[in-house]
Amino acid sequence: MSLQLFIGNKNYSSWSMRPWVLLTQAGIPFEEVMVRFDAFDADSTFKQTVGAINPVGKVPVLIDDGFAVWDTLAIAEYLAERFPEKRLWPADARARARARSVCAEMHSGFGALRNHCAMNIEASLPEVGRIVWRDQAGVRADVARLEAMWTELLAEHGGPLLFGDFSIADAYFAPVCSRLRTYALPVSPTVAAYVDRVLALPGVQAWVQQALTEHDFVAMDEPYRASR
Amino acid sequence: MSLQLFIGNKNYSSWSMRPWVLLTQAGIPFEEVMVRFDAFDADSTFKQTVGAINPVGKVPVLIDDGFAVWDTLAIAEYLAERFPEKRLWPADARARARARSVCAEMHSGFGALRNHCAMNIEASLPEVGRIVWRDQAGVRADVARLEAMWTELLAEHGGPLLFGDFSIADAYFAPVCSRLRTYALPVSPTVAAYVDRVLALPGVQAWVQQALTEHDFVAMDEPYRASR
Repeated sequence: MSLQLFIGNKNYSSWSMRPWVLLTQAGIPFEEVMVRFDAFDADSTFKQTVGAINPVGKVPVLIDDGFAVWDTLAIAEYLAERFPEKRLWPADARARARARSVCAEMHSGFGALRNHCAMNIEASLPEVGRIVWRDQAGVRADVARLEAMWTELLAEHGGPLLFGDFSIADAYFAPVCSRLRTYALPVSPTVAAYVDRVLALPGVQAWVQQALTEHDFVAMDEPYRASR
Repeated sequence: MSLQLFIGNKNYSSWSMRPWVLLTQAGIPFEEVMVRFDAFDADSTFKQTVGAINPVGKVPVLIDDGFAVWDTLAIAEYLAERFPEKRLWPADARARARARSVCAEMHSGFGALRNHCAMNIEASLPEVGRIVWRDQAGVRADVARLEAMWTELLAEHGGPLLFGDFSIADAYFAPVCSRLRTYALPVSPTVAAYVDRVLALPGVQAWVQQALTEHDFVAMDEPYRASR
């Protein structure tokens, strides 16, 4: 077995974080290949490097013995099939269906939160968060949906994570937990406690610690800071 | 077994089309519940009806004996698990992974094609298509990606469909085939032949025929027409 995961900067790349945290938290060995974000023009180093391994030119990409799997959802399904003993999805069919619904919802939704609260692990931006919260109804609606979703799932499955034990769904929402903390968005005690538990997972901690050592300032990912 | 599928207008709702075509083409019995698009305000009939069965307030939603599965990708995975004898995903593990990659790519991508070439089955808009093609580099890039993807998959699996026999991937791209035809976008003979084959599938034909009988003009889905 030889798995490689191509990722972007740990501080900024929320999509890269999902499969990396999934693999790490589940204890699946893999080799990380970091492709630093520079620019997304066709002739940038990033696009040239990633374009050579996948036709979409985006990270993350999982390579399994030369075979490329792209897009986080396809990577998650591939790993769930390849490592059934890791139980990456919930074992119960309906719980599994619900986990897939909320991951797919994240995959194509929460646009306001993603636009206005870009992931930036090393930053602390509570003042920005206050203004965003005041002005952006879309962000408030996105957080309200997270509140409802997480509260319901935690109650239904008894915690500590969304479907009881760690699953793909928690890896999927880990970058959201990081955003909620960076921008100090107001959430209920139940949700705040879930955010704390996700951010304390060893797989998430490992990503966060490595993000903090990057010291890389990528201007296009910094709508709110002029420098580090 | 009692499956219900909540959908929007057949003429416009490309996301509804995917699981409906999948179920129909695979010969899985289900009850259709049509919720006509009116407006997407919180107090609209559409939002009230759909919101009562799922928290996201969007179609399509699959209901299986009272249990709601939303989002097309989660519905597809649920049906693939529930009806393994239908082989909705390709049987080979790598082909299945590739099918999931391209469906996930569709799920979060092809934004320019989706924005500028809204699905409108009954309309014929080749003049609009010519202007869009001339002015929108993003649409040309999206179609170039479809060309590369489909040509490669058809060659690799030998056709007639993307992974040989009908699979979720063809259901996923059926609305795209409809758009290519409505706007008469220029494609290669290989791609044009695939589009013809998809549009000739009985499950797709059934959807198209029913769309043509709707005679419903929904202004917000009509960027290019003032009336029918």
